[in-house]
Amino acid sequence: MKYLVTGGAGFIGSHIVDELIRNNHQVVVIDNFSTGKEIFVSHHRHDPNFRLIKGDVLDKKLLTQTMKNIDFVFHLAAHADVRNGYTNHSVDHRQNLETTLSVLEAMFKNKVNKIAFTSTSSVYGDASVHPTPETYPFEPTSLYGATKAACESYIRAYAGYYDWQAYIFRLVSFIGERYTHGIIFDLIKKIADKPDKLTLFSDGSPKKSSLYVKDGVSAFFQVINKAKQQINIYNVGHEEIFTIDEIVNIILTVLKCRLPKSYLGGKRGWAGDNNFVHLDISKLKSLGWKPKKSLKEAVKLTIDYLLNQPELFRGK
Amino acid sequence: MKYLVTGGAGFIGSHIVDELIRNNHQVVVIDNFSTGKEIFVSHHRHDPNFRLIKGDVLDKKLLTQTMKNIDFVFHLAAHADVRNGYTNHSVDHRQNLETTLSVLEAMFKNKVNKIAFTSTSSVYGDASVHPTPETYPFEPTSLYGATKAACESYIRAYAGYYDWQAYIFRLVSFIGERYTHGIIFDLIKKIADKPDKLTLFSDGSPKKSSLYVKDGVSAFFQVINKAKQQINIYNVGHEEIFTIDEIVNIILTVLKCRLPKSYLGGKRGWAGDNNFVHLDISKLKSLGWKPKKSLKEAVKLTIDYLLNQPELFRGK
Repeated sequence: MKYLVTGGAGFIGSHIVDELIRNNHQVVVIDNFSTGKEIFVSHHRHDPNFRLIKGDVLDKKLLTQTMKNIDFVFHLAAHADVRNGYTNHSVDHRQNLETTLSVLEAMFKNKVNKIAFTSTSSVYGDASVHPTPETYPFEPTSLYGATKAACESYIRAYAGYYDWQAYIFRLVSFIGERYTHGIIFDLIKKIADKPDKLTLFSDGSPKKSSLYVKDGVSAFFQVINKAKQQINIYNVGHEEIFTIDEIVNIILTVLKCRLPKSYLGGKRGWAGDNNFVHLDISKLKSLGWKPKKSLKEAVKLTIDYLLNQPELFRGK
Repeated sequence: MKYLVTGGAGFIGSHIVDELIRNNHQVVVIDNFSTGKEIFVSHHRHDPNFRLIKGDVLDKKLLTQTMKNIDFVFHLAAHADVRNGYTNHSVDHRQNLETTLSVLEAMFKNKVNKIAFTSTSSVYGDASVHPTPETYPFEPTSLYGATKAACESYIRAYAGYYDWQAYIFRLVSFIGERYTHGIIFDLIKKIADKPDKLTLFSDGSPKKSSLYVKDGVSAFFQVINKAKQQINIYNVGHEEIFTIDEIVNIILTVLKCRLPKSYLGGKRGWAGDNNFVHLDISKLKSLGWKPKKSLKEAVKLTIDYLLNQPELFRGK
């Protein structure tokens, strides 16, 4: 099989590439390196099954050429920071929805009929049901969540029209090796500046869910190998759930840091944030998958990785 | 109150304008007359509360100027033909989603904080629950449905960010005076060509729901006056439901036409069509609303209207 991974040099995309290469598949990566990094895939550069294209998914001519003879698309290229939509109304629309439309059109032109797409728990917004099942309606509170919900809807329409198979994954926050933004990153960066206290956006009470990236990627392949519907939608998360305060305590313990904490905010970390994210993963587990790492283990692996990559913090 | 009605010279929009003017509100209509018609609002042209702007909602400069001092937006401007998305992938995206984004940005720039939006039963796609409640997830099978679902998601995000109030109506097919496309229109046109039989796209079995336009507009105002949530989502339909074959029979009876019928198709009228549309309207009815016209009465009113407007058929 020949796979195209958009955003394949990114945090999650590069782990998918590792898994595909390990299974002797042909892999083409297209990445504009806006947040992806060449070093995340450079260990494959001499593999004849691996090809890296530095380019933008919005370059329709390039993408249509790149899509030639592809059997399966992992569409990861996206704007990954939930917080920006409040102050920038176009970034999610352009980098999530328009990017996805570009992928769908290039697939259509090349008669590619299989797509896996990384959506988000943010499509559920402030869900009233926890853990939240896949049947819960879209109630996004951010443009990030709204654009991902829109992508899912467009993928459904193309899949329905042209008899494609689609795998849609609604992700909690992934952490682990190659993680480059989020609360662990922010905290390590803050502590490195040697403050006299650690300032947090919220009041510490929001409840969040995270998953170790390699467990997440194993979930993707479990679904792709086992799920047989035309449209296959799966939450990808963890049964464990912690408050922001508890997560910060875990991070501080791993870092052996004893700074006092200061809470700036209310029930939300930022405009559009959801203060209770807990996905029902029983559908995923029914396929025989379960996560191998606890949240604590995943946080520790993430911190170990970040502390060995000081260049990630330069200029941020 | 000063209202902006986008697509206010269209089938549904012009009935909203009538109701607003009747209640002594100031009304600004913006319409590009792609499907709207000046004659649908020309009876208001001497009313000092009425202003008509011939222009496109996608003209951001014009729309931002037009939005000045508006209190409430009825956003109706849209591509209204569900069938086109299969062969034209950009028409729904441009005329539904990009148009809605233009409206949301102009509202944001002018601090307008109330919007009513006409969505569609097509967001539910081939729902497995009938009648389908508002809590059913989005499962669109057409780009028309997908783009309307996307619009709803973006409206939610803006409303959440900026504390707007939003009224989202998911409509079945509306019929009645000023109706200009759909099955009744198509059948009258076909019969006028004096065929020896009447050819239908499907096998006649799809079950559809329709609502008399004035009943629909009264539902909009009932919700706006009574519903108090930040995001208010209401199905707008009828408890009556008929197969296409039954609807055709009603139309033929009203027209006193005895042509034999011929069925071209299968279970769907076109790619992306949904063969069972029946909305749960109990949420709407709980506000004290009910439709005044039966489907038969609404079909008769629609036919009476169309037979008196032969110019609508010219060039179609």
